[in-house]
Amino acid sequence: MKNFDQTVIQYFRQEAELSIHYLSIDCVVFGFHEGRMRVLLLRWKGTNEWSLPGGFIRKTESADAAAVRILRERTGLQQLFLQQFHIFGDAIRYDEEDTWRRIGFPVDRSKWSERTISLGYYALVEYAEVTPRPDLLSDACDWWSLDELPNLLFDHNHIIDVALAGLRRQLPYQPISHLLPETFTMPELQRLYETILGRTLDARNFYKKVQASGILQRTDERRTGTPYKSPYLYRFDPVAYPAVIRGGHLSFL
Amino acid sequence: MKNFDQTVIQYFRQEAELSIHYLSIDCVVFGFHEGRMRVLLLRWKGTNEWSLPGGFIRKTESADAAAVRILRERTGLQQLFLQQFHIFGDAIRYDEEDTWRRIGFPVDRSKWSERTISLGYYALVEYAEVTPRPDLLSDACDWWSLDELPNLLFDHNHIIDVALAGLRRQLPYQPISHLLPETFTMPELQRLYETILGRTLDARNFYKKVQASGILQRTDERRTGTPYKSPYLYRFDPVAYPAVIRGGHLSFL
Repeated sequence: MKNFDQTVIQYFRQEAELSIHYLSIDCVVFGFHEGRMRVLLLRWKGTNEWSLPGGFIRKTESADAAAVRILRERTGLQQLFLQQFHIFGDAIRYDEEDTWRRIGFPVDRSKWSERTISLGYYALVEYAEVTPRPDLLSDACDWWSLDELPNLLFDHNHIIDVALAGLRRQLPYQPISHLLPETFTMPELQRLYETILGRTLDARNFYKKVQASGILQRTDERRTGTPYKSPYLYRFDPVAYPAVIRGGHLSFL
Repeated sequence: MKNFDQTVIQYFRQEAELSIHYLSIDCVVFGFHEGRMRVLLLRWKGTNEWSLPGGFIRKTESADAAAVRILRERTGLQQLFLQQFHIFGDAIRYDEEDTWRRIGFPVDRSKWSERTISLGYYALVEYAEVTPRPDLLSDACDWWSLDELPNLLFDHNHIIDVALAGLRRQLPYQPISHLLPETFTMPELQRLYETILGRTLDARNFYKKVQASGILQRTDERRTGTPYKSPYLYRFDPVAYPAVIRGGHLSFL
């Protein structure tokens, strides 16, 4: 019982009372900053070990509401776009002994179920709007770039891989506007698509396709201080964009 | 306790012992026959009430394995393409009183959990290969056309709607070959796409796009007895088709 005080023990005891056993929720919070996709991770108290934010479903709470509550409690996030993406239902998902050793947590086997099926949700948030806040289980809550992830606790590296694959497949239907500030340039939007898809797109085709889709409004402002000719700033059209997303009509396959 | 014999009571008692509580699996089995999408439904013993095949996850069984086992036990299906599509996690999913009244089932509240979160899976199967077989809870297992569904038990009409929407969104990635016999004509393939998408496609564009994708091999045989000029029979290319599906490269949006 390394670094956990009585509050933490009490927290888990209470969760076991209030929540549905055998089930957990894990949340992959995606943000986009300086041309890279990032996820929000928590560092377990007094350790150098990181995991996704997660938690349990109360006995009379919907799974979707639980995911929102967990993200609020564990990261301070308020406004969220959340999407179920996968059920992690293997009988053995990761090496439990190793996991508990790494976080030095005293597990009372009699109080908790032998396995946990995890419901995966991903969130799309605007990086600059988020002030990550650790909770009582963690002493840091930080953004990590997807290409520099540490060896996470549990099966959380795998969960992030599956979340990204899910986002990629669902891309024509997902409001990636949540990942961007109010206004942005065309190259910034292209970079976001490229980062999610994991490959470069032809700038001219990208521009043509986005223009034809009608999802953007050009503002009168330009981004200054870039190495190129100051590019115009755009915003999403509040009527056309949701309609295109609903139909899944903007695909860069 | 209307129509249930001791075997059924015993079955549920045993499931409660062996399985993870609070969680169930519901399976939407899609088949395609005579130009219509169909789903496999079970009629509860001694009633005129229908539901999807479903069941529970054993304590040491993966969720995916449970879905396969449930379909085998409840419908006789062996070879399956199965896909998770949604978590039905609302605290109150349907009118329980009404449901139990309709099937006349004696519910022992003390033996079972107060709510059930359901993991939704859909299966794609070849209609002609299936010999539906009712299990000990049901006295019929039949195909129903999607446009003529009865008022199903539980929230199963809703689950089918969400499954179809999920299949539609994931269509470029899903091996719909499982829904067709070994060989088929181009109009038959087009009709399958149209039925899933819920709208007609231009025949010439469809033909061009499918040809360009390289997913089909034309056989030397033709379908005879059709009102038009006997159309050629095609089969899926065993190498090109899986590759196109993996990349999601055949979209009719």
